[in-house]
Amino acid sequence: MSTEVKAGLEDVVAGTSDICLVDGEKGRLVYHGYDINELSGKASFEEVVFLLWHGKLPNLNELNELNKELQKNRDIPADVLELVRSLAKNPANPTGMEILRTAVSYIGAVDPNKAMTREAHLAQAAKLISLSASLTAAIGRFKQGLDYVPPRSDLGHAANFLYMLTGNEPDALSVEAFDVALILHADHELNASTFAGRVTVATLSDLYSGVTSAIGALKGPLHGGANEDVMRTLMEIDSVEQTADAINKKLEAGVKVPGFGHRVYRNYDPRGLILKRYAKQLTEKTGNTKWFQMTEIMEDVVLKYFAAKGKDLKYNVDLYSGSLYNAMGISVDLFTPIFVVSRMSGWTAHFLEQYENNRIIRPRADYTGPVDLQFVPVADRK
Amino acid sequence: MSTEVKAGLEDVVAGTSDICLVDGEKGRLVYHGYDINELSGKASFEEVVFLLWHGKLPNLNELNELNKELQKNRDIPADVLELVRSLAKNPANPTGMEILRTAVSYIGAVDPNKAMTREAHLAQAAKLISLSASLTAAIGRFKQGLDYVPPRSDLGHAANFLYMLTGNEPDALSVEAFDVALILHADHELNASTFAGRVTVATLSDLYSGVTSAIGALKGPLHGGANEDVMRTLMEIDSVEQTADAINKKLEAGVKVPGFGHRVYRNYDPRGLILKRYAKQLTEKTGNTKWFQMTEIMEDVVLKYFAAKGKDLKYNVDLYSGSLYNAMGISVDLFTPIFVVSRMSGWTAHFLEQYENNRIIRPRADYTGPVDLQFVPVADRK
Repeated sequence: MSTEVKAGLEDVVAGTSDICLVDGEKGRLVYHGYDINELSGKASFEEVVFLLWHGKLPNLNELNELNKELQKNRDIPADVLELVRSLAKNPANPTGMEILRTAVSYIGAVDPNKAMTREAHLAQAAKLISLSASLTAAIGRFKQGLDYVPPRSDLGHAANFLYMLTGNEPDALSVEAFDVALILHADHELNASTFAGRVTVATLSDLYSGVTSAIGALKGPLHGGANEDVMRTLMEIDSVEQTADAINKKLEAGVKVPGFGHRVYRNYDPRGLILKRYAKQLTEKTGNTKWFQMTEIMEDVVLKYFAAKGKDLKYNVDLYSGSLYNAMGISVDLFTPIFVVSRMSGWTAHFLEQYENNRIIRPRADYTGPVDLQFVPVADRK
Repeated sequence: MSTEVKAGLEDVVAGTSDICLVDGEKGRLVYHGYDINELSGKASFEEVVFLLWHGKLPNLNELNELNKELQKNRDIPADVLELVRSLAKNPANPTGMEILRTAVSYIGAVDPNKAMTREAHLAQAAKLISLSASLTAAIGRFKQGLDYVPPRSDLGHAANFLYMLTGNEPDALSVEAFDVALILHADHELNASTFAGRVTVATLSDLYSGVTSAIGALKGPLHGGANEDVMRTLMEIDSVEQTADAINKKLEAGVKVPGFGHRVYRNYDPRGLILKRYAKQLTEKTGNTKWFQMTEIMEDVVLKYFAAKGKDLKYNVDLYSGSLYNAMGISVDLFTPIFVVSRMSGWTAHFLEQYENNRIIRPRADYTGPVDLQFVPVADRK
């Protein structure tokens, strides 16, 4: 055993994968061969789900099959709906992520098909793609005291989610923008949630256990949550005119402003560029431009501040998703659950890949404690 | 980024820890300085819980405090009990591990104290130590169509668990043996479930998310489950006289016999030696020696078989726990949930340690897929 400690496993290559290439130098994100710029605005989220699971874009038959499967799974079973409703109204005020984590674990427990075959896993994955969206919409509504809106089978995944959330059929631009947002967050190699899930399923545990672990990991503010932070920062300022001043004050006080920089993308975050375009378009169309304007000012102020210090900082995927989601009627506390709706595709793809060529994931620790202590009976201890 | 792939992270040192030393060469397992042979039969499980959390054995006051805290948390809240009861009776027949995973996630969701302080985490950890035992007992009873037995506050952790499971106050030897079994399974460094949980909490997610991940990982047959396999193997043979023949046939057919060998312990598994002693004592006392006798024959046959091939195989912790648990009235499908009851101590200790000196755990993957594919509209795809 080497005793070199790889803290946080930074730059340790934990395995091979053909799902996703994160090219930090060139600022590229590639899903099984396709740059996200090739997919955004052209493919639907459902096509990307198929691509991540099967390593190819679906033909028309395959896509129709998948769409049927996803539509079939959309309605939340009565017992799950009751569980989610009671949690959403619980006085402890569970977060959306805690409710999703519990609901997914429950759905797994009551799934009668416990086979560990690729076929069973694909069926479970389709169920989770659909239900994570329906559950997130239901949680959003219950938390606002509204009723469950049953799904529609004539809408695509993105449109149906927005319909189940708002109760209204969404406009075409919102659907396209949300579809793109789902695609952009679909996968990101061995990020912490995907890795937590792969460690879990690598004991040959079930797919639901993997997803439950991943939801738990994504819940942490160091992973999900950064776009929430951006939006909360803006909501606290709540004025286009005061944005520059407020952000400058934060920077001078050494407060970290969320939405900038990335451990892997050294130049720019390719997802951020695409999201900014859609955020601009959609907020202009709806006339609700306030948060987008504030975000642009925030970007400008932060970049100039660091440029003056010789640091070439760039904004990341989290900066513009807040104003984009807001324009679709999505409240801040749903931002991380929506990350689940999207990343469910990447998680399940990674777990399918793990099962195909499995090995238990079990590193070592460097022991820094004492040895050879003698037991002393409790009455004699200090 | 190095491109050397560390498959399964074998021998990669993912961090430092002062909780547990697994010395594979010398066959030693040390909890913060104390060899398990120093603790077994002398310390209670509660003392080991304190040791793992605080890095020292408790004095009398500290132990009394912990005992009070654990006793306070024993009774399952009504809503959790209803959830567990309904799951245990669900026609999909969820496993004990699926029910535990869901119940722990639920308990976390409805915990009003969501502070990320050491104090809050210790309170949550105590709650989980107590409730994992109560839940496991309740699951065992519900699955047999029996009613919930409320806890007793005048018993220790091990005795109370056996009482809640069987409805009878256990004898002293059963309590000691179960206490020792809990101690022996309490921690094992960065095993897969602990690691899955550490990856989860390293995003600064909550303690319950870490435990939910860990339960999901332990559920996999490559991690928990080996003592279940031993017992099921014996139950299939179901005869002392036929054990040697049946095991020999398996070996000659190349079937892996569970309960032998260990990735880290190259010589012997120190936990196995202690458990065998207790299994012998307890089965002799109860007169129910059948499974122990069969296990001894199994040990003898397997070791001789491999010795003849020049291979010095040893039995591990999983070989004798089956006959031991059986003598206490614990059914096979509770073996992995009981592993949770014990390992909860190690998991929570590791998560406390992770929070104290946190860094997100995020390795990389070596991308083996294609690049630069051009998007083709769905109608034109083959």
